[in-house]
Amino acid sequence: MHKTRLEAFSDGVFAILITILVLELKAPHGANWDALSPLWPKALSYALSFVYLGIYWNNHHHLMHLVQKVSGGMLWANLHLLFWLSLVSFATAWMGENHFAALPTALYGAVLLAAALSYFLLVTVIKHQQGPGSVLAQAVGKDWKGKVSPLIYAASIPLSFVSPALAMTGYVAVALLWLVPDRRIERQLN
Amino acid sequence: MHKTRLEAFSDGVFAILITILVLELKAPHGANWDALSPLWPKALSYALSFVYLGIYWNNHHHLMHLVQKVSGGMLWANLHLLFWLSLVSFATAWMGENHFAALPTALYGAVLLAAALSYFLLVTVIKHQQGPGSVLAQAVGKDWKGKVSPLIYAASIPLSFVSPALAMTGYVAVALLWLVPDRRIERQLN
Amino acid sequence: MHKTRLEAFSDGVFAILITILVLELKAPHGANWDALSPLWPKALSYALSFVYLGIYWNNHHHLMHLVQKVSGGMLWANLHLLFWLSLVSFATAWMGENHFAALPTALYGAVLLAAALSYFLLVTVIKHQQGPGSVLAQAVGKDWKGKVSPLIYAASIPLSFVSPALAMTGYVAVALLWLVPDRRIERQLN
Amino acid sequence: MHKTRLEAFSDGVFAILITILVLELKAPHGANWDALSPLWPKALSYALSFVYLGIYWNNHHHLMHLVQKVSGGMLWANLHLLFWLSLVSFATAWMGENHFAALPTALYGAVLLAAALSYFLLVTVIKHQQGPGSVLAQAVGKDWKGKVSPLIYAASIPLSFVSPALAMTGYVAVALLWLVPDRRIERQLN
Repeated sequence: MHKTRLEAFSDGVFAILITILVLELKAPHGANWDALSPLWPKALSYALSFVYLGIYWNNHHHLMHLVQKVSGGMLWANLHLLFWLSLVSFATAWMGENHFAALPTALYGAVLLAAALSYFLLVTVIKHQQGPGSVLAQAVGKDWKGKVSPLIYAASIPLSFVSPALAMTGYVAVALLWLVPDRRIERQLN
Repeated sequence: MHKTRLEAFSDGVFAILITILVLELKAPHGANWDALSPLWPKALSYALSFVYLGIYWNNHHHLMHLVQKVSGGMLWANLHLLFWLSLVSFATAWMGENHFAALPTALYGAVLLAAALSYFLLVTVIKHQQGPGSVLAQAVGKDWKGKVSPLIYAASIPLSFVSPALAMTGYVAVALLWLVPDRRIERQLN
Repeated sequence: MHKTRLEAFSDGVFAILITILVLELKAPHGANWDALSPLWPKALSYALSFVYLGIYWNNHHHLMHLVQKVSGGMLWANLHLLFWLSLVSFATAWMGENHFAALPTALYGAVLLAAALSYFLLVTVIKHQQGPGSVLAQAVGKDWKGKVSPLIYAASIPLSFVSPALAMTGYVAVALLWLVPDRRIERQLN
Repeated sequence: MHKTRLEAFSDGVFAILITILVLELKAPHGANWDALSPLWPKALSYALSFVYLGIYWNNHHHLMHLVQKVSGGMLWANLHLLFWLSLVSFATAWMGENHFAALPTALYGAVLLAAALSYFLLVTVIKHQQGPGSVLAQAVGKDWKGKVSPLIYAASIPLSFVSPALAMTGYVAVALLWLVPDRRIERQLN
């Protein structure tokens, strides 16, 4: 099995997932500020999810860079990740439409948590396949970002019922964590 | 005609088909459990169809691996398969919205059956083109999975009118059958 | 400019156009035959448009095969073709929803006519660029199919106001004309 | 990081963005001219946005041609551009639905302005990475089109509140500016 076709399919899914997000941003019926302004929670949720899917695409890109051979298990672990990422648009729409109410904000965190864990699973499957001296294991190293992120998501889920604003702060903080370039990994890759 | 462009187009269609499924999972208007919980039949149907399209993509991937030359007949047999797979999202939405009622569950099986038969047709067209000593014929072998699956679909269609739950068990069983890796084929391919 | 990226973009657009057609096939609210059966004009229109987009993708594929170098004019002629093909989903939905009423059936023909003319324009731009002794000019030859098709579309547009069934017969006839493989072209290409 | 995967992802997003535009062009319920004719502002907006996305894809294509190595910054600048371009469909739908009312026409200009500035940012990031003697810096040269366009957008935003028709003239003028092939750049590239 060729890596290129797995990448092409994943790129296609990423491209569609990041693009259909905007379909939830429906044009309001009025033509004035009063019609446009209630859209801000949807617009904000949209921007955050766009960044998250961008981060996943970026990380997936780097991950595939370190894969030489595709196995059946890797393929399904990859589809499993895409499944959870496909639910981001649903969770984004629900959270935006309900102005960051408690349960939708918690569900958004649950989808992010499931995506993070399935990314971790994908990395583990690849490392396991590469065996001792795995190129990926060396490149990823201790991966503190990958370990801290699910903890913050897991904490944000119950926190949503206390203060959705605090939970949102957690989601934004994790996104910023990944946006800041990690020089060590880039050095290893170049 | 180059195989790469047929693969690229098919990958694009697979990626879109698997992703637009989620568009049927509309965000509910309320923000509480009472609004979310009625979605479970849609969510379950979504997950099952996601797995089915993943299986088809996976099998299509392996199939194309064994193709050297693309003919006009193969191209149309491929489009014919994609046509039936494109109806999966319609059947999924209808079945999920009607909580696995008899007719929608039967139609879901009919679409799966049509897709299975058109996959079989595609395999036959490729084998015929490759002639005696076909690489594909050897790799596929007796293909008991490919023969058992349409039988289970065909049995599940009338069964839907007796017990939709039993028909659904049939659809889930076939999906599991394909998810379990087939060591013999993988060995031949590696 | 590389041909591969023009092909990749066009393949992406073709894959999306052929797939979003099915989004117009909305799941009915009831779960019985009375709910399903009124969908037949939509399902029929869907199948016809799926075949048409498949034919265009197929022909586009062959056309690009004979292109060595991409010019700015070719790129815009290609986008112009994709523009008209993008309106197929709109015309399909309107025609299907109105059970092949006169005006929607005429508009469907008008979109097919515009697509056929823009395909002809794309071929002309490529031939002009390749100059005398053009590989494409030789492969296409007299192209009677390409000349007959727009005539049938043009005749079907006014015919829609007399008998939509006759106009539809024209659209189906042209589709069949292209589905039947043209041995001479295939011979030249192989 | 390979340029091909960045191109593939971007092509996918461009292909989807240009195609989902047409989803806003909903089939009217009636089957006569009175039902069809009110769609003209939507159809016009659609055509303009299709051309704009075509121009961006075209320019992006040329830009990537001059990139040898992809950096993290370039990747995010690229995603940032795609983010603003993803809002074109929203702005198009709002403007078309409200028959070129003042605020939607201004917002359309604001999205075009944000896209133009993020394109400029992407070019700057690439030039900065390539350092002195940058291939891109030489090819782009003074880039008067890239400098005039945002000025026209910026002028059209307040102008929308005086005369939306004048603002629209500005948007159409910029599109025509880019449609006319720029011989110097093509010469440099060939």
